[in-house]
Amino acid sequence: MKKQQKILVLGGDGYLGWPTAMYFSRRGNEVAVIDNFNKRKWERQIGVVPLVPILPLDKRVALWMEITGSVITPYVGDLKDSRFVRRVLKSFQPDVIIHYGEQPSAPFSMMNTVRAVETQVNNVVGTLNVIYAMHQIVPDAHLVKLGTMGEYGTPNIAIEEGWLDVTHKGRSDRVLYPKKPGSFYHLSKVHDSHNLEFACRVWGLRVTDLNQGVVYGIETEETGLATGLQTSFHYDAIFGTALNRFCVQAVTGVSITPYGKGGQRRGYLNIMDTLQCVELAALNPASQGEFRVFNQFTEVFSVNELAELVRNAAKDVGISASIRHIKNPRKEDEEHYYEPVHTALPKLGLKPQLLSSTLVESMLGKIIEHKDAIRKTSIKPRVSWMK
Amino acid sequence: MKKQQKILVLGGDGYLGWPTAMYFSRRGNEVAVIDNFNKRKWERQIGVVPLVPILPLDKRVALWMEITGSVITPYVGDLKDSRFVRRVLKSFQPDVIIHYGEQPSAPFSMMNTVRAVETQVNNVVGTLNVIYAMHQIVPDAHLVKLGTMGEYGTPNIAIEEGWLDVTHKGRSDRVLYPKKPGSFYHLSKVHDSHNLEFACRVWGLRVTDLNQGVVYGIETEETGLATGLQTSFHYDAIFGTALNRFCVQAVTGVSITPYGKGGQRRGYLNIMDTLQCVELAALNPASQGEFRVFNQFTEVFSVNELAELVRNAAKDVGISASIRHIKNPRKEDEEHYYEPVHTALPKLGLKPQLLSSTLVESMLGKIIEHKDAIRKTSIKPRVSWMK
Repeated sequence: MKKQQKILVLGGDGYLGWPTAMYFSRRGNEVAVIDNFNKRKWERQIGVVPLVPILPLDKRVALWMEITGSVITPYVGDLKDSRFVRRVLKSFQPDVIIHYGEQPSAPFSMMNTVRAVETQVNNVVGTLNVIYAMHQIVPDAHLVKLGTMGEYGTPNIAIEEGWLDVTHKGRSDRVLYPKKPGSFYHLSKVHDSHNLEFACRVWGLRVTDLNQGVVYGIETEETGLATGLQTSFHYDAIFGTALNRFCVQAVTGVSITPYGKGGQRRGYLNIMDTLQCVELAALNPASQGEFRVFNQFTEVFSVNELAELVRNAAKDVGISASIRHIKNPRKEDEEHYYEPVHTALPKLGLKPQLLSSTLVESMLGKIIEHKDAIRKTSIKPRVSWMK
Repeated sequence: MKKQQKILVLGGDGYLGWPTAMYFSRRGNEVAVIDNFNKRKWERQIGVVPLVPILPLDKRVALWMEITGSVITPYVGDLKDSRFVRRVLKSFQPDVIIHYGEQPSAPFSMMNTVRAVETQVNNVVGTLNVIYAMHQIVPDAHLVKLGTMGEYGTPNIAIEEGWLDVTHKGRSDRVLYPKKPGSFYHLSKVHDSHNLEFACRVWGLRVTDLNQGVVYGIETEETGLATGLQTSFHYDAIFGTALNRFCVQAVTGVSITPYGKGGQRRGYLNIMDTLQCVELAALNPASQGEFRVFNQFTEVFSVNELAELVRNAAKDVGISASIRHIKNPRKEDEEHYYEPVHTALPKLGLKPQLLSSTLVESMLGKIIEHKDAIRKTSIKPRVSWMK
């Protein structure tokens, strides 16, 4: 029943990009990916590695072909190079562009001036080149752009999906939802969103901005087809998220360390739901000129709730873990109101797979398998927001 | 009665930067300027020149010393070079940084991908380097940053000064005023504002963001001291504003050409009032951690009102000018609600000098003096928002 489309995945070598490419390929779409391997370069520069080694893109693409008979076409190049972007769009003529091709870490962006600038230039310029090339070459294509729930910060009012109806001094307007992001990385996504809204308004582009929560899990139907197809699992303080770090801490027998009071509440979703959401967006494109925003997560947890979930799941597999709060390296509210709306994707048909102790236990199992590869020192926070 | 301060003017070779440097120097402050002459480079690249030739910065600084006995220290370098920015801040130790150092033209930013990227990178990276260096070297200094009223667009509700009190679903918050800017240039200023608000919130910087209207006039007390001290007058379609273009059109005997219906309403102010506003901001700094926004203009006009003002002033000096509406190269509302608040600067003591036919007549007089230097072809719009 599903429409077959030409899908171009930006950042196709990454944690989400690669599973997305396989997901669409397996469903009969024609898939190409772009990557410049910046993420792998940054990992080497700061001295972290994913828990399980990840094959190079060309090897994964070849393995995919071997196993499924389907082609995923890799284009190797930098989105900051506008001529490269135009060349790929001319050659591939995508119907949908799914854009994960950005520097994804808040702590990385807060390391120093150079990393802050690198993050904002990489992310903003890449997206600018993509929208310019779309406008010139594939004006009817649909851009599905990954943003983050972190763009909103933690306002004292409900977080709507991208837009807010305001009445002020007796008059009304629908405005972009005001943002208060928490790092130069999150700010880069806010800048992207403003550039995208403009491109829709002035050029009539179709854009869906997915303000995604924190993704957990590493297994999808496709990664399960072969060891060589798996995607990256980061547990370090730069590229790893809280749930991953907590699981690795439990396995290595050190305390689980929430930052500060641990009352920080955020939206979360399973990697399988990311794929579902992106597919729903692709199958139900934004209208011409529409800047559409979805809040993409399925559940809200506090950091403390995650820490307890991991402690309890660890107990079930025979590991005794303790929780120890450490000084928060970030500057953020540690107790706050949080009421983000997230109804648009369920309305399109999203069937969420909620976080369970079963899933955490399976993550713990995977980590135990690779316990010897864990670099314990990389979990400790090394970037202070205030430095 | 005025406090003497160390004032660093970024973009000190420019239309507003140079008069600002002289203004503060003449009032006994210690003044330094930074410039990399990018603006002069861009003028050469696109083939436009100011109506009256402008001396190089070193010659203007020497002349200023000769006439007033005061030193304006020039630092030549690029704000995109973080080490250069740090070096200047360490050496000069400013109390106030007045930041005009950005690519200032909307049509320039809309020429093509390369110019869009150049504009956003130049403006955003420069400001990022400045705030990082302030945080590290002069955390108590006050940044007075020039933004633009064009960041707001033309919403259907009153435009407040940077922040908006919102009540939503029974709860309240004070949020950044939502933005809907009209070009990649205006977007770059929106990006700056978000980065600045973050730097105040997380690092405790003091920032005043001046959302300035369209500035007219080229004469200040200091430019009047010698011909060699004058500032630039642009009338071309890239760097010139509507009032300047209309005056030059009247003098050269071609029709005054408002874009589209001419109902576009904007805030305007005299260059002398820019200097007053910047001084008021410098003398009354933002508090530590405060991101303060002032809407900096004194009057609102529609493009049609400006066209008629010029036609009438021209008539008074014996020139018969006609008005002819041309296709709008921009994508913008040509008839819209516009109610921008601008009370903060008057509360600090701003005494505006409103736009009069006398001022327009004096501009016409100046243009007539240099009539032979006018390049008529440069007035015609050459950048389409839709291309």
